[in-house]
Amino acid sequence: MMNFTSVKDLTNINAWLKKALEIKANPFGFQEFGKNKTLGLIFLNPSLRTRLSTQKAALNLGMNVMVMNLGTEGWSIEMTDGTVMDQGSQEHIKEAAGVISQYCDIIGIRTFAELKNRDEDYSEKVLTKFIQSAKVPVVSLESATLHPLQSFADLITIEEQKKITRPKVVLSWAPHPRALPQAVANSFVEWMKQADVELVITNPVGFDLSPEFTDGVTVLHNQNEALAGANFVYAKNWSSYENYGQTAPNLTDWTISKPKMDLTNNGKFMHCLPVRRNVVVTDEVIDSGNSLVLEQANNRTYAAQTVLLKMLQNVG
Amino acid sequence: MMNFTSVKDLTNINAWLKKALEIKANPFGFQEFGKNKTLGLIFLNPSLRTRLSTQKAALNLGMNVMVMNLGTEGWSIEMTDGTVMDQGSQEHIKEAAGVISQYCDIIGIRTFAELKNRDEDYSEKVLTKFIQSAKVPVVSLESATLHPLQSFADLITIEEQKKITRPKVVLSWAPHPRALPQAVANSFVEWMKQADVELVITNPVGFDLSPEFTDGVTVLHNQNEALAGANFVYAKNWSSYENYGQTAPNLTDWTISKPKMDLTNNGKFMHCLPVRRNVVVTDEVIDSGNSLVLEQANNRTYAAQTVLLKMLQNVG
Amino acid sequence: MMNFTSVKDLTNINAWLKKALEIKANPFGFQEFGKNKTLGLIFLNPSLRTRLSTQKAALNLGMNVMVMNLGTEGWSIEMTDGTVMDQGSQEHIKEAAGVISQYCDIIGIRTFAELKNRDEDYSEKVLTKFIQSAKVPVVSLESATLHPLQSFADLITIEEQKKITRPKVVLSWAPHPRALPQAVANSFVEWMKQADVELVITNPVGFDLSPEFTDGVTVLHNQNEALAGANFVYAKNWSSYENYGQTAPNLTDWTISKPKMDLTNNGKFMHCLPVRRNVVVTDEVIDSGNSLVLEQANNRTYAAQTVLLKMLQNVG
Repeated sequence: MMNFTSVKDLTNINAWLKKALEIKANPFGFQEFGKNKTLGLIFLNPSLRTRLSTQKAALNLGMNVMVMNLGTEGWSIEMTDGTVMDQGSQEHIKEAAGVISQYCDIIGIRTFAELKNRDEDYSEKVLTKFIQSAKVPVVSLESATLHPLQSFADLITIEEQKKITRPKVVLSWAPHPRALPQAVANSFVEWMKQADVELVITNPVGFDLSPEFTDGVTVLHNQNEALAGANFVYAKNWSSYENYGQTAPNLTDWTISKPKMDLTNNGKFMHCLPVRRNVVVTDEVIDSGNSLVLEQANNRTYAAQTVLLKMLQNVG
Repeated sequence: MMNFTSVKDLTNINAWLKKALEIKANPFGFQEFGKNKTLGLIFLNPSLRTRLSTQKAALNLGMNVMVMNLGTEGWSIEMTDGTVMDQGSQEHIKEAAGVISQYCDIIGIRTFAELKNRDEDYSEKVLTKFIQSAKVPVVSLESATLHPLQSFADLITIEEQKKITRPKVVLSWAPHPRALPQAVANSFVEWMKQADVELVITNPVGFDLSPEFTDGVTVLHNQNEALAGANFVYAKNWSSYENYGQTAPNLTDWTISKPKMDLTNNGKFMHCLPVRRNVVVTDEVIDSGNSLVLEQANNRTYAAQTVLLKMLQNVG
Repeated sequence: MMNFTSVKDLTNINAWLKKALEIKANPFGFQEFGKNKTLGLIFLNPSLRTRLSTQKAALNLGMNVMVMNLGTEGWSIEMTDGTVMDQGSQEHIKEAAGVISQYCDIIGIRTFAELKNRDEDYSEKVLTKFIQSAKVPVVSLESATLHPLQSFADLITIEEQKKITRPKVVLSWAPHPRALPQAVANSFVEWMKQADVELVITNPVGFDLSPEFTDGVTVLHNQNEALAGANFVYAKNWSSYENYGQTAPNLTDWTISKPKMDLTNNGKFMHCLPVRRNVVVTDEVIDSGNSLVLEQANNRTYAAQTVLLKMLQNVG
């Protein structure tokens, strides 16, 4: 496998899931593969879970890790080809990717959607350009439209927590004061479609995800109807795909609250974090015994460790 | 021992001191305890000595270290419970502490006093909230009102340098252009009260530390009187506890100078650093052979290493 | 060897070159020297290649590495002796260097020219003061007037790529929108003068480097004349030494383009990066098979690893 940017990079999702659980049971058992190998983690955007869990995953494998905040610690990066670089940007992403490849065996990179131009974000301009010039395997640490390490961790969490073979998993939009990317939601849908679950998406009118992802999935605009009988409720805000980047912070009746959770089948609450408490979800729900948010965060390590190990072993 | 936030977390200060000197004599001799263990260092404020010495301590023990500037590299943190998080803060400290605990065996955190609300600072709001949600042992890398790793290093330094069994140790206030916390001073007093020293504090009227710390300690408002016969002079500025956060940068006669040191018994000069030269202390004194500031900085490593080793061994 | 700040710190450039190639062929073969040794990397300015390649070099040697952005993660640094530090700066470079030395076996530091006062820059004020107070060997990660790790990597690259015993190497000024230091150019000249090459410098009138460096070297103000028959073309902008810090961004006929390269003897293109595409060099040239920029970046690792190994072995 060359890169990890989407569930499409996996040959067999169930084999990966099994490997992740094997690694979680024996996290230090694969250090012969990481010896003298170096992971570079490149951040163009803030990160807590991804930053720490991916480092931890690499350290568990005996790898060295170098972390860099590219924009603030290095140079400002030019993303467009053919530019006469006589303005603010100091280094072209072609050189940045090529150079970092000289020092790393695997590179992780995080870059967010700008939410200004839908076509540009959905072309994954930054990630794609980086990969084109990279000489080593690249792991997405969240890109403009996908967050595969998060989704893989979510899959692991559902597998561990499910009590029936094919649980009902509801992805619910929730309000938020700022415009957020669709990446976590898109990616979750992409992975759940390949998992053995009954997936239902619920969001307000005007907030349907891209048809590329929702194709074949039940989308309900009535949240209560969607939540009925759910085993897992995955809350997440995203800004509008249709009216690209628009928000609806006033839709506070979409907040995941105790009465909402009471509609479910003793459903577990999930969120990728960071989360705006009492906006996306009430304290009562996230602090309850049914909240899986820390288990999700914990599984970020094993998702990343599985990807890195596959890359180190050069197997798909 | 679960956490290290104060001298009160020690069962026996002399046993810890002995262990620190044992580690200093053999810094790489305890690596079996750190193998595959990870220390997370979380900074909400600037740090040089603490950042490097605590990393070094962990590396000496064979641990992995992950360093993070939480506010700038991650998300802005909400400290108050029950808030509707629809404003600037993006992640609640509950989640931050819980999540970081998933990736670390021990967490160090640094947070400063805001010097606006005395009760809030002295409640150690941030550190306390972090510990409440952390799942692993927490080391204070300086909190609003205490700096125990510094004080432990100071204790080691005095133990190494003293020429009589019970030296006279004078903690002297010194001028400074900006309002600083009382943490270093409070903490030094707390540790010295348990050490075999004669402690005297000297500061201007209006700058007495909290009675919680000064109780039972001689406090003199005449600096010259206090310095007479001192074996160690520990200079430090702090803003007022009484008129909370007020400063007195104009009291330049409190600067530790050669004539002041001449009042002592060939006293050694100490300061935690960073220090404002020719404000807190003159060049002549800090550059003299009696200055211990680099020895203090060096002992930060062994203070931290002792704490980490105790945590790894799970002993008090 | 105590410090590495210039080619003058080498006893024998050819022996170092041979050692670098030996290390490149066996990068993990020297880990017994780095065990339990710590490299501190201190940045006062942005860095990508230096940051990652020097870390990688240390990791290859089995060292621990601590990276710190001194100005932003620590305290603001006072550079002048004798100052009454009652203004913005919080820590004197004397203490910073002394303290960092307590935690590191070797320290690397990066600091740039300010391009305001030529005498001050050429006195290497910051690096010199740091070294004066450091207690351990110091590696320049680029200083105000020199960039020896870059030049060493360039030397390795030329050695690997040359097809004749004594190639013609042309250092050519190129346009740039901002004022840049002369460090890379000075340093390249300093190293090439000791290497077995025919060195020619070409730059516009008013942009001659300091005579200290150009003494004995052919300097042509006609770029085309200089490029004739070149085996290597090293492009680099520098601001004026004569009219200190002045730029000439309008001299766009100095850009290294395909027609310029056609004047050479199938010359290889070199640049230290980061590079302004289509300002310093056209896409066509830097993307061609004759471009060595990634090889240069790769050799940064082995240049740094050679220096660190020499320091660990305490040999010249």
